[in-house]
Amino acid sequence: MTNQREVDGVGAGNAERAVVALGGNALLRASGTGTFEDQLAAIEDTAARVVDAIDAGYEVVLTHGNGPQVGNRLLEQEGTADVPRLPLDVLVAETQAQLGYLLQQALDNELGGGTDFITVVTQTVVDPGDQAFENPTKPIGPWYTEAEAGGKPFETRRIGDGERPYRRVVPSPDPVDVVEADEVARLVDAGNLVVCGGGGGVPVVRDGGLRGVEAVVDKDRTSAIIASSVGADLLVLLTDVPHACVDYGGAEERPLRDVTPTELRRHLDAGEFGAGSMAPKVEACVEFVEVGGDRAVIAEPADLAAALDAEAGTQVQA
Amino acid sequence: MTNQREVDGVGAGNAERAVVALGGNALLRASGTGTFEDQLAAIEDTAARVVDAIDAGYEVVLTHGNGPQVGNRLLEQEGTADVPRLPLDVLVAETQAQLGYLLQQALDNELGGGTDFITVVTQTVVDPGDQAFENPTKPIGPWYTEAEAGGKPFETRRIGDGERPYRRVVPSPDPVDVVEADEVARLVDAGNLVVCGGGGGVPVVRDGGLRGVEAVVDKDRTSAIIASSVGADLLVLLTDVPHACVDYGGAEERPLRDVTPTELRRHLDAGEFGAGSMAPKVEACVEFVEVGGDRAVIAEPADLAAALDAEAGTQVQA
Repeated sequence: MTNQREVDGVGAGNAERAVVALGGNALLRASGTGTFEDQLAAIEDTAARVVDAIDAGYEVVLTHGNGPQVGNRLLEQEGTADVPRLPLDVLVAETQAQLGYLLQQALDNELGGGTDFITVVTQTVVDPGDQAFENPTKPIGPWYTEAEAGGKPFETRRIGDGERPYRRVVPSPDPVDVVEADEVARLVDAGNLVVCGGGGGVPVVRDGGLRGVEAVVDKDRTSAIIASSVGADLLVLLTDVPHACVDYGGAEERPLRDVTPTELRRHLDAGEFGAGSMAPKVEACVEFVEVGGDRAVIAEPADLAAALDAEAGTQVQA
Repeated sequence: MTNQREVDGVGAGNAERAVVALGGNALLRASGTGTFEDQLAAIEDTAARVVDAIDAGYEVVLTHGNGPQVGNRLLEQEGTADVPRLPLDVLVAETQAQLGYLLQQALDNELGGGTDFITVVTQTVVDPGDQAFENPTKPIGPWYTEAEAGGKPFETRRIGDGERPYRRVVPSPDPVDVVEADEVARLVDAGNLVVCGGGGGVPVVRDGGLRGVEAVVDKDRTSAIIASSVGADLLVLLTDVPHACVDYGGAEERPLRDVTPTELRRHLDAGEFGAGSMAPKVEACVEFVEVGGDRAVIAEPADLAAALDAEAGTQVQA
């Protein structure tokens, strides 16, 4: 079926195409108790915001994170003796379908049914020589005591304080290429609303064919590649703060509103942004605009429609 | 990328399109110990057979079962206290990505890389009034003792003998429609090799929008719907016996080789086939040919190429 919904803004022929990356509290309500119902409520809230953007005439491609979900899959694998241990790449694939299915269903409901949402299992090619494989730094899954931290299938590191300061760390290599990019572009061209790139994509290396590797790829960096590949005008990274800030949490904290990629890269190189949180978002915005993207935005989910209209968030434009 | 592989048989312009449903031992080696490596080995064996069919010039669309995998997801959910309980429809979605990802990767390797495989999360619409919801009969997941069988999130029934005769049973409603059928057809028309309909599809009802229901849909029946929707010439159901048989396991057992849908439906109505195993395969073959499909086949994975060429299996044709 083709989506016959009328749009108020831009006509279908010249609609602006936006890749919207959902992360953090867009998929799990921070205040909830972490039940499936909490997750669903967060997804439904987010779906309502995405529908605002669709109603405003934007052609939306959705990507999303999977941190809490892949963490739960690791807990389940550890907690159960009688099931085969699955490698991390397979667990990432599973979370793509879990969240893609729930997102597309929430969006279909919000739009009153009959939409053309489709979830594509997405693989992201990484370089087997990426230094991340030598030095895994990305924390995933639960926190452990020193005693619990031993004998895990992945390296654990002391990265916090308190009773459970240890966490599993895995490599987070840079995304090089998205295997299904052409197929996603074809589906978008045909009018589909695509969910893809979940959790940054399933990490694979090219090795004759493709081979999964136990790593996680940053979802915002992957979203920038998808945005370029599908010819998107806009890349919007939704997070839990309204802007990227320089000197975040410091005395000179200042939100960035309109900024060029050159200026943003200078702040990035000066170490103004958190390594595991804002820095990859900023990097993704800079990369997208530098390779020809029109505009990249960092904003809160509640501000999505305004962010698309350049009226909220950190707006990155050459 | 477009698949540039040369084909020996039918040319690309008039290639016969075949939906091939993988089940049972095509995805998990019966003789293995049930490790991930066993599963991967079974998938690689199956991928080699599918590549034989692609090499012979067939346009292949893959569907697959998920019985052991969704059973493992249930075990993991039960075994782990600190994760949210996910409804069965979400677990089915997860297995679609797990197996789709592994299948498309094995196929890409077998073909030497650069293929256009894509896995689509697939929802199957069922009727909320289907009598299966009143009378759940499909066993899934592990076996239990009488004591263990109490307090499960689904109904359990005594369906076996021995120490653990109880198993969870869930509704298995008839598939009515496949939500992503048009998108799958579009991808196949564009030359993609699509994996879809995993586990019979995620069961949903139309209720304004779409709503997941806790059930499982027969994968062969769903495959027949997908085959019709994508204009397939052939539907091939791979299983662990070389033919459908009348009086299977009885004194008059006789394999069916070439059979019309009319004759097959007579055997079906006479109760010649096992309710949970061969009967839905036979029903799927009859349905596909009755709505205009050219030919449907039930065969073993090792016989796939011969089955496509009408030289093995139970061949169903009007």
